[in-house]
Amino acid sequence: MLTEPDHEVFELPGFRLERGAVLPTARLAYRTYGVLDERRSNAVLFPTWYAGTHHANEWLIGPGRPLDTERYFVVVPNLFGNGLSSSPSNTPGPLGGSGFPEVEIRDNVRAQHRLLTERWGITDLQLVLGCSMGAAQTYQWAASHPEMVRRALPFCGSSRTSPHNYVFLEGLKAALTADADWQQGRYTRQPAAGLRAFARVYAGWGLSQAFYWEHHYRELGYASLEEFLSGFWEANFAGCDANDLLAMLWTWQHADIGATPGFDGDLPRALGAIRARTLSLPSQRDLYFPPEDEVWAGRYIPDGTVRTIPGIWGHLAGGGADPAAAAFIGDAVRELLTTPWARAG
Amino acid sequence: MLTEPDHEVFELPGFRLERGAVLPTARLAYRTYGVLDERRSNAVLFPTWYAGTHHANEWLIGPGRPLDTERYFVVVPNLFGNGLSSSPSNTPGPLGGSGFPEVEIRDNVRAQHRLLTERWGITDLQLVLGCSMGAAQTYQWAASHPEMVRRALPFCGSSRTSPHNYVFLEGLKAALTADADWQQGRYTRQPAAGLRAFARVYAGWGLSQAFYWEHHYRELGYASLEEFLSGFWEANFAGCDANDLLAMLWTWQHADIGATPGFDGDLPRALGAIRARTLSLPSQRDLYFPPEDEVWAGRYIPDGTVRTIPGIWGHLAGGGADPAAAAFIGDAVRELLTTPWARAG
Repeated sequence: MLTEPDHEVFELPGFRLERGAVLPTARLAYRTYGVLDERRSNAVLFPTWYAGTHHANEWLIGPGRPLDTERYFVVVPNLFGNGLSSSPSNTPGPLGGSGFPEVEIRDNVRAQHRLLTERWGITDLQLVLGCSMGAAQTYQWAASHPEMVRRALPFCGSSRTSPHNYVFLEGLKAALTADADWQQGRYTRQPAAGLRAFARVYAGWGLSQAFYWEHHYRELGYASLEEFLSGFWEANFAGCDANDLLAMLWTWQHADIGATPGFDGDLPRALGAIRARTLSLPSQRDLYFPPEDEVWAGRYIPDGTVRTIPGIWGHLAGGGADPAAAAFIGDAVRELLTTPWARAG
Repeated sequence: MLTEPDHEVFELPGFRLERGAVLPTARLAYRTYGVLDERRSNAVLFPTWYAGTHHANEWLIGPGRPLDTERYFVVVPNLFGNGLSSSPSNTPGPLGGSGFPEVEIRDNVRAQHRLLTERWGITDLQLVLGCSMGAAQTYQWAASHPEMVRRALPFCGSSRTSPHNYVFLEGLKAALTADADWQQGRYTRQPAAGLRAFARVYAGWGLSQAFYWEHHYRELGYASLEEFLSGFWEANFAGCDANDLLAMLWTWQHADIGATPGFDGDLPRALGAIRARTLSLPSQRDLYFPPEDEVWAGRYIPDGTVRTIPGIWGHLAGGGADPAAAAFIGDAVRELLTTPWARAG
């Protein structure tokens, strides 16, 4: 029995989603690190990535770490669909399972905004940062709440899911749902073959060609390629709920800050509305969030800088497992946090 | 009723495969273009790619085309497993269907060598060329028969399937076989959901991120991304036999000219044995045969040159559908064929 709960939950009664559905009680799971100061001026927001929970963000958080808990109050909200916040797997009744409604990145940001403002009265964020889908939330925060976000550090992600990234996700979805056990989401057992296929398709995308060429998985303790595919990739998704994965995948596919009301689908305009000092860190060999897309987006952000994470880890450079990439990201976080803030634009 | 058969078949009785199995009657389907001259000195060999037939190679062949049939005798042998040559789908008895044995690239080359020497007495090839798995066969030809291959032009392929490429193929395989209708290969109907997943996974790999970013599929006549995924990718594999796809996939995964007896698994040594004037054409944005791998290999080929096909078509640059890439490849073929031949090494 846990003496201390692993996370807390902020409840949002009658939470209306962008696409129209209403969750009778939306649950936003979160964890905080550090102490909010009296002026409520030391908050940092660090949303989670696809299929991750707050645990996956903890490598950057702690005393003496880039998100130093001696100094900052770090809030890590869990993505809707991840199994801790409202998800197909934990929502009762007709909105659970395959009946779970479509959730946008903006729904996540809106729930997080209510958490910060209603729970703590926070109106200023020193930093919003996030990896992958966490980066999508970071961009959405910066575009939706320019008055509130002083600094933004999206890494291994983008402000809009590109068409190619969408196709990569279509492949994952098709692989998962090719399993007859999926039963259009009304399964009685998890579609094991589909989850396995999902993981194996993901394996080719998550790391660069050079990572495999150099047999870098051996340094992670896997003796063979097959052992890496099963022991790392399959294991990573084996415990996941298929509908949860599909719900988050939908959110990912539809990420686009240009679709925010007021920007009329004009992504450059949405990027231009960002007032945060923004430091984007794409990963050099990321196969579905390639640096070129971030270089393009960076041109429209008034105080935007793009700095590419070097190396062969591809998308997983953002996960903290590669010491060099972790140090690069950590240094960028420290640097951005110590940069005096001057509102741009 | 066809008055002229579309292709011919060379039969190899008791054909023993590298991995030990014996095909009682291996069938090598092929088509020829042009006329073999009296000295048997104008032959060109152009093996096929994954899931393609000789038809897919015809864009380079014909009067006035780079493989000018007024001048050259072009032989296009079909890959084992492609449904025309011996394949799971057309092999009777216990070696048919899921019982089809493992076939190596070297088995293909050995059968092709017998076709050329036994059927026509050809002992010199002006050029061997091929795209993707056709490039693997090209490299194998150049390493196994250095005395016979004057020029080699592998495009969008490699001499060894890289670990990342292997993982990409594992993803395709897992997607296809996640469908319960697959029945371990003993299906009574094709696994339609698996074939669909296979196609959708392939879609992300076959073209570059930039191809999708620029919505280039619209220029191919597809109004939307979804229409392109279904109308182009799904349609491309919908008529395929699942076991055929898996048989060719196995061949692809195990391609490695270094594994040729005599080279002891030493790929640089195998590359060093090539005597052909070799011009390798990787495609700039190819996601599973990246140019860097060919640049690496090119260093070991005595008379080897690597020239990258520019553009955003990724792997499909080799297919002939992009006019710019087709012209680039065509020009390279013409140039190589007119280069006086001097045996290297």
